[in-house]
Amino acid sequence: MNKIITIGRQFGSGGRDIGKLVAEKLGFAFYDRDLISIAAEKSGMSKAVLTEADEKAASPWVYAAIGQSGQTNFLPTNDTLFAVQSQIILDIAKTENAVIVGRCADYILREAPVELLNVYLYASDAARVKRVSERLGITEQQALQKMKRHDKQRKLYYDFYTDRKWAAHVNYHLTLDSEKFGDEGTAAIIAAAMNAKRT
Amino acid sequence: MNKIITIGRQFGSGGRDIGKLVAEKLGFAFYDRDLISIAAEKSGMSKAVLTEADEKAASPWVYAAIGQSGQTNFLPTNDTLFAVQSQIILDIAKTENAVIVGRCADYILREAPVELLNVYLYASDAARVKRVSERLGITEQQALQKMKRHDKQRKLYYDFYTDRKWAAHVNYHLTLDSEKFGDEGTAAIIAAAMNAKRT
Repeated sequence: MNKIITIGRQFGSGGRDIGKLVAEKLGFAFYDRDLISIAAEKSGMSKAVLTEADEKAASPWVYAAIGQSGQTNFLPTNDTLFAVQSQIILDIAKTENAVIVGRCADYILREAPVELLNVYLYASDAARVKRVSERLGITEQQALQKMKRHDKQRKLYYDFYTDRKWAAHVNYHLTLDSEKFGDEGTAAIIAAAMNAKRT
Repeated sequence: MNKIITIGRQFGSGGRDIGKLVAEKLGFAFYDRDLISIAAEKSGMSKAVLTEADEKAASPWVYAAIGQSGQTNFLPTNDTLFAVQSQIILDIAKTENAVIVGRCADYILREAPVELLNVYLYASDAARVKRVSERLGITEQQALQKMKRHDKQRKLYYDFYTDRKWAAHVNYHLTLDSEKFGDEGTAAIIAAAMNAKRT
């Protein structure tokens, strides 16, 4: 049975950096935005269009517009991307040990025959603003706005495509304050949890 | 600077057993209900009375009754116990490395000069019912009722004496599903987190 670590995360809490470190420590594959490229390849859809829809739920008006158009075999890009990514994530789980960041992977794999470790990362607003402004070379004010927007989108996306609540600790096996432990420390604890897992 | 691990927990999630394992692994002192005996000794109050008040907030009517009595230098046992336990917990933090289960220790030590690791443990209702009914030799139905009552009391107690919300992951550095990892696994992850801590 393959081992899969899913990482849900607040924007700016270091999910990508920490996920990569965990994958390195354990010798696992790592998937984050790369899932978009694979999805574009598999679906024949434009990578730019998919990137725009990544980790976002479609606006309600898209469904209204589709309803009025009378089309029945037509879905918003967001739903198509979710469906294609779900299939890719299930395929990954069948073929290798992996760390997967975001994309509701915890939910998509809920009944898959894998050894699943679901992790959620958070950090204080101050720590996240600092990380985001440094990474993107923007002001702290801009970083704060970006952070709030992205967290709202991620929450909408997660709550829309799953029957769970984003950031509720009962959805995860392990919830960590990445600011407290630092990237290396957080990755070490997640790796320890993967090895300590009983079931 | 001494190292203190505080463990908040749902009733039946194994806080006591897991806390003891962590203390053994790290060579730390362990405090749980023992704090009552120390409090009785220090305060000269009856251990039976203190045990009754342990981890419970006083009923609102107690404060109403005190108000009407015109007494101003009189507190419910619960408040006295909280004050005495707070002092004991601060003293422990000054003298040794320790694991402290419950009693709002995370809040009491929030500004103390210690290396603090705040942990919260939870598990599914089914796992907790099983643990409680086995430990106490009661039926699963009785265990479920006891569990619900205790969790309500703990939440009231925590929310009353702190300005935080019980079980909200942002209050803790690490939140763990003890059912997923088992007692040994959970203890190993907490020990790893203590050693991995950056600050």
